[in-house]
Amino acid sequence: MNSIGTIFRLTTFGESHGPAVGGVLDGCPAGLAIDLQGVAEALARRATGSTASASQRKEADAVEFLSGLLDGVTLGTPIAFMVRNEDARPEDYEPLRNTYRPSHADYTYQAKYGLRDWRGGGRASARTTVPVVVAGAIARQWLVSKGILVEAVVKHIGGETHPQRMDALLRQCREEGDSVGGVVRGYIQGLPAGLGEPMFDKFQACLAKAMFSIPAVKGFQYGDGFAMTSMRGSEANDPMEVAEDGSVRFLSNHSGGIQGGITNGAEVYFDVAFKPIPTLGHDGRHDVCALPRAVVIVESMAALTVADQLLLDGRFGK
Amino acid sequence: MNSIGTIFRLTTFGESHGPAVGGVLDGCPAGLAIDLQGVAEALARRATGSTASASQRKEADAVEFLSGLLDGVTLGTPIAFMVRNEDARPEDYEPLRNTYRPSHADYTYQAKYGLRDWRGGGRASARTTVPVVVAGAIARQWLVSKGILVEAVVKHIGGETHPQRMDALLRQCREEGDSVGGVVRGYIQGLPAGLGEPMFDKFQACLAKAMFSIPAVKGFQYGDGFAMTSMRGSEANDPMEVAEDGSVRFLSNHSGGIQGGITNGAEVYFDVAFKPIPTLGHDGRHDVCALPRAVVIVESMAALTVADQLLLDGRFGK
Amino acid sequence: MNSIGTIFRLTTFGESHGPAVGGVLDGCPAGLAIDLQGVAEALARRATGSTASASQRKEADAVEFLSGLLDGVTLGTPIAFMVRNEDARPEDYEPLRNTYRPSHADYTYQAKYGLRDWRGGGRASARTTVPVVVAGAIARQWLVSKGILVEAVVKHIGGETHPQRMDALLRQCREEGDSVGGVVRGYIQGLPAGLGEPMFDKFQACLAKAMFSIPAVKGFQYGDGFAMTSMRGSEANDPMEVAEDGSVRFLSNHSGGIQGGITNGAEVYFDVAFKPIPTLGHDGRHDVCALPRAVVIVESMAALTVADQLLLDGRFGK
Amino acid sequence: MNSIGTIFRLTTFGESHGPAVGGVLDGCPAGLAIDLQGVAEALARRATGSTASASQRKEADAVEFLSGLLDGVTLGTPIAFMVRNEDARPEDYEPLRNTYRPSHADYTYQAKYGLRDWRGGGRASARTTVPVVVAGAIARQWLVSKGILVEAVVKHIGGETHPQRMDALLRQCREEGDSVGGVVRGYIQGLPAGLGEPMFDKFQACLAKAMFSIPAVKGFQYGDGFAMTSMRGSEANDPMEVAEDGSVRFLSNHSGGIQGGITNGAEVYFDVAFKPIPTLGHDGRHDVCALPRAVVIVESMAALTVADQLLLDGRFGK
Repeated sequence: MNSIGTIFRLTTFGESHGPAVGGVLDGCPAGLAIDLQGVAEALARRATGSTASASQRKEADAVEFLSGLLDGVTLGTPIAFMVRNEDARPEDYEPLRNTYRPSHADYTYQAKYGLRDWRGGGRASARTTVPVVVAGAIARQWLVSKGILVEAVVKHIGGETHPQRMDALLRQCREEGDSVGGVVRGYIQGLPAGLGEPMFDKFQACLAKAMFSIPAVKGFQYGDGFAMTSMRGSEANDPMEVAEDGSVRFLSNHSGGIQGGITNGAEVYFDVAFKPIPTLGHDGRHDVCALPRAVVIVESMAALTVADQLLLDGRFGK
Repeated sequence: MNSIGTIFRLTTFGESHGPAVGGVLDGCPAGLAIDLQGVAEALARRATGSTASASQRKEADAVEFLSGLLDGVTLGTPIAFMVRNEDARPEDYEPLRNTYRPSHADYTYQAKYGLRDWRGGGRASARTTVPVVVAGAIARQWLVSKGILVEAVVKHIGGETHPQRMDALLRQCREEGDSVGGVVRGYIQGLPAGLGEPMFDKFQACLAKAMFSIPAVKGFQYGDGFAMTSMRGSEANDPMEVAEDGSVRFLSNHSGGIQGGITNGAEVYFDVAFKPIPTLGHDGRHDVCALPRAVVIVESMAALTVADQLLLDGRFGK
Repeated sequence: MNSIGTIFRLTTFGESHGPAVGGVLDGCPAGLAIDLQGVAEALARRATGSTASASQRKEADAVEFLSGLLDGVTLGTPIAFMVRNEDARPEDYEPLRNTYRPSHADYTYQAKYGLRDWRGGGRASARTTVPVVVAGAIARQWLVSKGILVEAVVKHIGGETHPQRMDALLRQCREEGDSVGGVVRGYIQGLPAGLGEPMFDKFQACLAKAMFSIPAVKGFQYGDGFAMTSMRGSEANDPMEVAEDGSVRFLSNHSGGIQGGITNGAEVYFDVAFKPIPTLGHDGRHDVCALPRAVVIVESMAALTVADQLLLDGRFGK
Repeated sequence: MNSIGTIFRLTTFGESHGPAVGGVLDGCPAGLAIDLQGVAEALARRATGSTASASQRKEADAVEFLSGLLDGVTLGTPIAFMVRNEDARPEDYEPLRNTYRPSHADYTYQAKYGLRDWRGGGRASARTTVPVVVAGAIARQWLVSKGILVEAVVKHIGGETHPQRMDALLRQCREEGDSVGGVVRGYIQGLPAGLGEPMFDKFQACLAKAMFSIPAVKGFQYGDGFAMTSMRGSEANDPMEVAEDGSVRFLSNHSGGIQGGITNGAEVYFDVAFKPIPTLGHDGRHDVCALPRAVVIVESMAALTVADQLLLDGRFGK
């Protein structure tokens, strides 16, 4: 229940104020030289996002690899790693011990487990995305070696699409003690046609499941998404040209690179909707907006999904 | 890969123009008296939708149960069922044998499997939702016995929210040989708090995966969804009151009944975006809009998801 | 819970005296021309075994394929099939409606489900191995196309290893109204080195799970098995020669073709222990020994296991 | 592929000479107070076995818990833990860098992954059973709280069933630089009737898969096992008495507490066959017999299996 993927499979662990967060990445092909600096940079993107929005909590986030590597090269065995929670100050949360914060998971954890880790958000904290980013960085490195690029950008924050205005909005929210949501747009380029399963494991279904695993996500669409609900079929079609050698070129891409649950070789693009961070009137250590830090998390979840689909497909072997 | 669910698990089979479509529903609790008339009514809703939009293909859709029932009561063993494809006319599709229809799955199936069933849409046909509706009807009957209701309605078609205008739009599309999309709104009432897993099997992640298994779905959101991306945190909060006995009442429900991936006992509501049906200038046997027939499919996938979550939770036993 | 395999995955259904038994085989590679006569021959081996031992119940066992094939060639989509239960005579079982037969599953099904299909053995009947044999025959055909052979023989019946004596023992048991057990030996030839996972999905663990799915199986061993518990290490070693090109030849095969959970390219061989059939003093329609009919079932479960391992490995693509 | 279990699910990691071995135990019910001293004692049993047989490698084996506990009580979230590999001396293995040890997994790992961790046995080392014992100890504590006992004993070593003679045999083997195998007998008491699934996830199938995950295991049988292959049905039956209140008492237990794949409430007993340890003429740091240390590993794998079956059954809730 804390795992995702079938062959390329990540299991994560850790509460925000326990000893560590971490994960076990199973099924990563053997022989991949991991760029550890690249992993660290991905974590830095998660930790700081942009200056205006980032929480003040300092997270060195040094990853310790516990298994699966020999001289930095993957052995094909499970890659376990952890990041210690060094800046945990549970005493900050002492006043919350017997309170449910609104729009947090305090109450639902209590309802589910009959008890909860009141020291911070426990397993519901954004801190639990650290192992996602570590594993996602490894997945992206493997994908790059196969010619596949996964990238994401902030599409808008609170409706603002221009960087300058985004920053202004974030500053304003910080001053007002308020928070704001937004949309992250993701792209996957270089995918072969033929990934995904026809019925319940459609490519978009697996991608959607991955995105809704990210805290604060309220919506997901791919291709032209919700906008297609007001289009006519004649506008939404993606005509294609079939060359003499049988290769195919699409003249438009409303579909977002997927038809019938299976990739068609065109770019996959999708949007992920984040609600405003629910923390209000608290101690100032929290972000006013999840978006800047969420970009690398979206990339990570997408990369994990694509890596698993490729290994299920089998065309690159293991 | 043609299965969904962990304990309450549906496996489906069938091409639109093969001998039959059907499924195996595993994990349904023993001792449930199935209302076979209710199953037939669900299939009728799928087959006809509303008059203005439905395809002319007549589907008697008589379900034959092959196992798992004794005198109409579930045995706890797999419930297999099938519906024969009686009205299949593959000769209609003969001209398409060597052609890829745009925005269909013809090309992606060819890319994935190296061959395809050119007789109609094969496994990508909407016909494959028949077994989903059969299994979903059984799931709903079990849920009702536990006090849980799953329902869906058409929220808009091509932007029109009033029935009259929807019908006019559908008629217009039919005249113009065009098609149109829309949004289905789903509701789940009576859910206990505590369903869903904290990390990758969040309640909304499982629900999203189920919805994106439906053909033509391009987007999913729950609670206030994409609209929350332009809200401030102060607007989006769901304050709650904790009574002396520890019970909780939410004063608003922007969250859509889920926090931290776990249900909070409030109503779960969600939207599913359907693109326009891609068939254009074809033989007139196809719908101009998936929406009217899609309502019962959305209900079915939601019911399958909820039934599995309840059994994973274990609170009702098996 | 009624499925086995991860990619090459069989789900079965059916009670012995319900309308049909059958299965859905998912993940079978596309483009395989199925030899339907070969499937029928496998079913005939299951139905009759050898004359002296077989039950008198006549089973035409005509398979009807419901999906996944076009002109006898696999489409890559789920292959569903069923065999009708034509000779069911539930009235034979009427006296057993309120009785638990000793060493049958009557009581355990009642305990598990709170009710049971008293018409024959329900899901515990050997009849449920019909779909295993159908799917296993398809698996074997695919394996043969990859140069892999799966075969089984009767190693002994009630301790007798010579056919003549086996037959005499079976006749004697029939006269005495008694039954007897035995051992089936299985062989897998042509396997590449490298199949199986190092920890919990060891090749032998998956094979053992498959064998213990067969009714009446009480033991499983591979290589020299239990006999190795009384050997010294110096006797049990399998020395190998490494040629200049890196290829390896094993000078003995006590290990049974598996080391550390992973195949080494040598023949895999294993034994499956069957208890005597528990039916005593009943109406004479039952076998006195499961062994002759069990051979093809052992082959089938082994073939299903190997096919899944090969697809997980990915070396032959999909 | 390095995970076992569906709800109560263990994922392990670690090479024998990497930084650490460990695991993530997911699905353990919330609110269980872990007896950490009991976990340490289980590890001590794994580390030393009996004096005559144990390797000289000293393993402090101090477990560090990384998540899932608050004040020693389970939170319901993943319990991650690790044991550092402090006594690793890879230089001992330097001579083996380019050699395949016979009857080890050196060659099969090379064949599978194209490279291997030559520093000791890597993932094939018995060291990887450390996390199994940690998780198994937790599982046993939960089971005890439900009245279920899992225990194992050495049944024979090299054919010797008396402790004195076993010790003499082990001493002799050590002097001769040889090794020897044996059988561990396991018992599960207090199980409710009704656990296990009728077809492919039979109770014995899950138990067998778990046992064959243990290094050096070559055979598994339950109830009277292989001995039943030479019995008549009339000897092998387990008659039962049904009391007026519907409760059942078995007059014998040849079946080993399982019928039709489902537990019947009687004691489950089983045997696990271990081959002789393959290390010969090496440096003396290895055991001459796996048996004494294997007892707690058998108990652990059995406990993990039973805990998962109970949670799948749902009768104790989560």
